[in-house]
Formats: sequence, C-alpha cells, structure tokens
Amino acid sequence: MRVGIGILGGGVVGGSLAHKLLTESDVITAKTGLDLELVKVAVRDLEKQRPFPSSYATDRPEDVVDDPDVGLVVELMGGMEPARSLVLRALDAGKPVVTANKQLVAAEGPTLFQRAEANGVSLLFEAAVGGGIPIIRPLSESLAGERITSVMGIVNGTTNFILTKMSEDGLPYADVLAEAQRLGYAEADPTADVSGADAAAKAAILAGLAFGVWVDLDRVYMEGIEHISSTDIAFAARLGYVVKLLGVAESTPDGVSVRVHPALVPDNHPLAAVRGAQNAVFVSGPALGELLFSGPGAGGDPTATAVLGDVVTAARELLAHAPVAPRVRIGAGVVADFGQVDTCHYLRLEVDDAPGVLAAIAGAFGEAGVSIRSVWQEGRGEDATLLLITHAAPEAAHAKAQQRLAEIDTVRQVASVIRVVGDTA
Amino acid sequence: MRVGIGILGGGVVGGSLAHKLLTESDVITAKTGLDLELVKVAVRDLEKQRPFPSSYATDRPEDVVDDPDVGLVVELMGGMEPARSLVLRALDAGKPVVTANKQLVAAEGPTLFQRAEANGVSLLFEAAVGGGIPIIRPLSESLAGERITSVMGIVNGTTNFILTKMSEDGLPYADVLAEAQRLGYAEADPTADVSGADAAAKAAILAGLAFGVWVDLDRVYMEGIEHISSTDIAFAARLGYVVKLLGVAESTPDGVSVRVHPALVPDNHPLAAVRGAQNAVFVSGPALGELLFSGPGAGGDPTATAVLGDVVTAARELLAHAPVAPRVRIGAGVVADFGQVDTCHYLRLEVDDAPGVLAAIAGAFGEAGVSIRSVWQEGRGEDATLLLITHAAPEAAHAKAQQRLAEIDTVRQVASVIRVVGDTA
Repeated sequence: MRVGIGILGGGVVGGSLAHKLLTESDVITAKTGLDLELVKVAVRDLEKQRPFPSSYATDRPEDVVDDPDVGLVVELMGGMEPARSLVLRALDAGKPVVTANKQLVAAEGPTLFQRAEANGVSLLFEAAVGGGIPIIRPLSESLAGERITSVMGIVNGTTNFILTKMSEDGLPYADVLAEAQRLGYAEADPTADVSGADAAAKAAILAGLAFGVWVDLDRVYMEGIEHISSTDIAFAARLGYVVKLLGVAESTPDGVSVRVHPALVPDNHPLAAVRGAQNAVFVSGPALGELLFSGPGAGGDPTATAVLGDVVTAARELLAHAPVAPRVRIGAGVVADFGQVDTCHYLRLEVDDAPGVLAAIAGAFGEAGVSIRSVWQEGRGEDATLLLITHAAPEAAHAKAQQRLAEIDTVRQVASVIRVVGDTA
Repeated sequence: MRVGIGILGGGVVGGSLAHKLLTESDVITAKTGLDLELVKVAVRDLEKQRPFPSSYATDRPEDVVDDPDVGLVVELMGGMEPARSLVLRALDAGKPVVTANKQLVAAEGPTLFQRAEANGVSLLFEAAVGGGIPIIRPLSESLAGERITSVMGIVNGTTNFILTKMSEDGLPYADVLAEAQRLGYAEADPTADVSGADAAAKAAILAGLAFGVWVDLDRVYMEGIEHISSTDIAFAARLGYVVKLLGVAESTPDGVSVRVHPALVPDNHPLAAVRGAQNAVFVSGPALGELLFSGPGAGGDPTATAVLGDVVTAARELLAHAPVAPRVRIGAGVVADFGQVDTCHYLRLEVDDAPGVLAAIAGAFGEAGVSIRSVWQEGRGEDATLLLITHAAPEAAHAKAQQRLAEIDTVRQVASVIRVVGDTA
C-alpha cells in the first residue's frame, strides 16, 4: 500500500526524515505493511548539500502540496507563514498533514483541527512537543479516560543544557550560553529558547490536550532563564534543589493555568535528574498518580522518528478511507488569572544585618498573606543574605509581599525570586 | 455517538472501569465526543458487593458478548480459557475487543490479530503491559519508524515491591513476601509473580511489538527472585548496584532474545530509582537513544484508565466504519538461542583462603572464554568470600565457567550468580 510523501522543509529534521524514507523503507514496510515513498522536498536553498539526492528538492513548496503523487504532507518549516497557508492548502486538498511546528499548533490549533475534520483527514503533531518522546498521543488517546490535574515538564533542551552546565560547572549564564552556541545547542539568536517562548508554545499545546482548553499564547505566563545567576544555582544546591525551566499546565479551581518559568525543583524529584538537552514530561491525575515520559527532546533523528510515527498513522488512516474522528476536542474552559494561581517562592534578599530586619520582613509577608516556610541567613556583618522559601500563596499575594519588601529600609535588594515546584512539604 | 460497552470480569479492574463509565461519562464525552454506555458486566459471583449496581451484573459471559446492545467488549478475566474463546467470539461478531490479558496476548497474539484483521475490527491491549503506563501504543505506533535495539524494564510490581523492601529494610525474602501478601501486593499463591512468569509474558509482548517476532513463551528464558538473598542485595549495594527483576527484549546478531531474570543495575541507572510497585520501561534505538516510560504498573484505577484509553480508540474506529489496519505486524524473525546471548555476570563464591585460589578461578574463567572485570575479596581466614563481575560473554561460556568452578577443590560453593545489566564500563 503505497503513499507518496511530500516534505516542506529540508533542514535538520526534514533531511533526516527524507534520508530515513529513502534508506529504511524495509524496516518501515516490515513493521507497518506500508510503502512510504518520498516524492518531493521543499527547500529554501537548492544549492545546499543535503542527506538526500537533489533530484527530490524543489524551492516551490506549493508544488509539493499540489503534486498529485503526494498523498501526505509533512510540514517542517516552522513559524507561522507560509507554513499555515500550506498546511491548510494540503488539508483542503484532502491530504493528511504531519507537522512538528509547535508555534503553529499552539497559535492556530483549533482552526487547523476543525479544517482537518471538515476535510476528513488527519492532522498529527507528535514532534511538536518533546522531540522524540511520545507524549502527544498518550495525552490525547491513551489518557482520554483520566481527569488529568497537571502536566509539567522540561520541554526545552537548550535551556536545560545551559542550566545543567551552569549547575555542574559553576559557570555564569553568559559563558555557558556562548559555549552552547559554539556547540550548536543554542541558536545565534537564542531569544526564543532562553525567554521561555518555545517552552510556552509547548506548554500551551499540552494544556490543550490535557484539558481541552486552547490557551492563547498571550495568556501564558512566561519568564525565561536570562536572569538566573550562578549564585542562585549554588544557593539552591545548598538547600537541596536544582534550577530547571519548567512548562506547567495545570487545572486549578479558577480555570486552566499555563506558565513557563524557572523553578527550584527538589533534587530527589525525577525532573531534577533530567540533564543536558534531555526532555521529560510529568503527567499527574487521580487514577494514575504520576507518569513520567523522558527522552531526547530535540535533534534531527529523534524528531524525525516522532514525525515518522505520525506519518505511519496518518497513512494508515488515509488508506482506510475513514473520516477520521478528531483526536483533539476543544472544550469551553476558563483560563485562570495568573494572580490567582498558587505558587511557592524562593527569595534571595540582601539585607542589613541589624536587629529587627527579620521581623520587618516577616511582617511584610504576613500583611500580604504569604506564610514563610523556612529562612536561612548567610553571611554576617554589614552584608547579610537572607534566603526564604514560602508556603503556597496566590501570585497576587506574592507580588504584594515583594512590593512591601521593597519599602523596607533595611532590605537593600530583593536580589532574586524563583518559584519552587515539586516540594512535598 | 453512543457505543455500548460489555465487560468480561468484575474484579478490581473491571469494577473500577464500570464505575468510571457510570460516573465519569461527562469527562469522557467532553474529551472525546463519545458516549460510552455501560451495558453489562460478567462476574463470577453475583452475590459479591461491587462498585457498580448489581443490575449490570450477569454470571453468563456469553450473554455479554452476544448482547446486541454491546458494541465493544472489554476482556478482564485473565487466563487462557474461557477468555480466549470469548474474545474470538466477539471479534467474529464484528465487535472490537480491548483486553488487559497479558497471558492471552503473549500466547495467542498472532491468532488474535489475524482474526481481528479478518473481521475488520480493533484488538487493543495497552493495559497488558505496564498497567497505567502507555507503552504498547508508543511502541506499535509512535516508534514504528525506529530500528529499536532493545526494550527493557521493570514490568512486575509485586517483585519490585519485594526487592525494594529487601533492599531498604535489609529483610530476608520470606519475611518480605509474607508482608507483601498481608498488604495485598502479592497473591496467596505468588508463583506467577516471583517466578518471573508474569514478567515473561509482558517481555514477550514487548518483543513482538518492537521486533515483529512473536516469541513462544517456552523460548523465553525465565528466572525468578526466589533465590535472591539479602546477602547478595547487601553486597550489590556495596559495589554500587541494586537488584531488580528485569524483562529484556533485545535484537541480537543471532535473533531476538527475550528473557526475564534478576539483575544488578548500577545505582545511578534510571531503572534503579524505580521503587515499590512502580513499573518502568526503557526503549533504546539508534535514532532515539533512550526513552523512559514510568508510572504505576498495577492497581485497579491505573489499569482501568489504560483500558479506557483503548476503549476510546476502539470506539472511534468502530464508529468510523473503517477496516482497521493491523497495528501489529508479525514478521519472519529468528529467536536467538539463549546460549549465544551476551551477558555480564556477578558471582559470589565461597572459597578457601589459600594460595592459588584466585589463579585457579581465573583459569576456569579463561578456559571458558569469559574475562573477569573486577574481583573483591571479603573476609579473611578460612572462610573467604569472592565477588566477581565479568565482562560480557555468551551465556554458554558462562555456563562452562561455572562448571569449571564447581570442579575446583578450593571453591567450596558458587553461592550465587546474578546477571549485571546497564553498566557502561
């Protein structure tokens, strides 16, 4: 059963996928009974060397979508346009689409799913989150019967590589970022990764699958790792924590909350052990307790493998001539206001080591309605450092506490504030 | 879109599933658009109290399968007969089947898949391996494009509970088994768990999905945990290992090898951290590197959740009126002879502390073609204990070495032999 495959995008993942289709068709056929045949690959630069013969390359992506020999389209261009238009064009032509484009799925998911359903074809996006880790399908199918309470994870390999290096080698952010760029783990312009934007799109997709609520990206709270200092990483380690950039999708009494921020994670938590460019996703629910999925979060080969899994499923559904039931249901849900979301905070304060400082600080927290779980004082003399970890309180209360702290004369500086996640105490 | 559900088996999982269908239909409908309606549950004893109204119960399983209102059958009876006949009867009636029956799937997989395909209906079995952990679907669909090299894991919760307790509390096997029985973690007759038979069926299923080769259960090498002593657990800990019962499905140059045995796992290996009744499965392949799936391996609610995920998929496929493409391809593969499989061994020898002992032992290994990686001597005087860890060698060579050891006068006893897995050295 032959299906012609057209690929939009001849970069690292597209190249790896084309190469797989050309060289591993025997495994694929043996395992699936399908004959997946590479037809065309749309590339930006026809002159560039690629891991597939140049006879497959074209610089006109429309030709790939429109080619009558192409029965299934794989979109690996990334970004919004022209990816969006090309995906819709393929769906309207009755061609199933597999995409790894987290931005497109996060921003336009409901539109795309509706269009796929209207045309009776599949739209699959396993590689959009977690690279080679199968997480989209388990969330949308295997866990359809679970009342998921939260999905949380390390979903950006670049920032996890940087934080791991900072933590293990004690180096400052700028040095490690420069090294990550040299090694190809970070882009020349690393903004999308280090600002949390990449993780935010992925967290929004996870929320959509877990809760049926598609959260607008501008309602996702987002904080990057640019302000994480090796000082805080060292203090965190002394208190038994590691710093990770987490994407969190949570069902709260006030609605669905999606957020991305650095967090102190207890060092015996499974997410603490996720090192380098690895990714991991933690799913919690009343029946299941906790499920952990971990593996390679990025890279051409792992991502191409995830894409290929989707291609196999989409091809099967195409050949079954079945009007495919939509995998993603969009429900009517409320997005929680970030100010109402309960979190725990770690704060590092530079204070005068004078009598009454701690009382004033405790008063500020008390007035704001935030209770303190533990306090450590580091250093003596004029410059004292106070480390505080709070109990859970609404973000709005935390903001109020920080405002009050800034008004205390003996508090020279609120040097840093990082959320704490995964503490059982 | 309504689908009537009939359940065969009203035990822990069946009861939990029936309860879910009756009480959580709102979540299921919101997430999937499906109206899954409980029709009948076949139970063994009509008098027993259950978490669903007795009006649903019948003691005639055929009536569940034959009920025209039942569109989809869930088999949770376990064992071979009558489960096998009832599953085939449902498939022949054009009703998709979801089963959690590892024995049936391991022993009769190819027959069942072929029958499902011939009738154009689905046969799904996510809950047969790893309880609530989605592993069957990722292996058979998401990873269809990967040349998997091995699948390895902790797939029996009872034995992992026992080994964890022995390790953490330093108690002997018999005491911990008795406690596990009191707590309901082990059955009154624990043979299926502690002998490795349960894990063997699961490992055979994983091999079938990973390699397309359905290995007969009598060709699965199987060794249980009955002979694991707290002495060996303590020695292993001193050497930096924990003892786990592993199911291994591996692609070797000589064919597919499926085996279940206790193993020393390095204590920094992800499988070493899997405690109590948790399960975890490790998938390795050239493109993906390593994927880890972990979560609750047993229990009514997690297993019922996995079953429900399958029910949703099967119901969708039923409503799409599509001849469903087979998910599992049975290929022509060779089963490796266990004697040819490469493994590393840990041995504990009771020896005379006399000159020349070590030379004789080294000679025995050398003659057998097994090279020793490290040796520790414990104790002095008449009774010395030697701990050895070997490099990888074929099982047949290990057997030969052990034979030679038994012939050495100064070796009083080969007190124990446990395989070592996951060492990078």
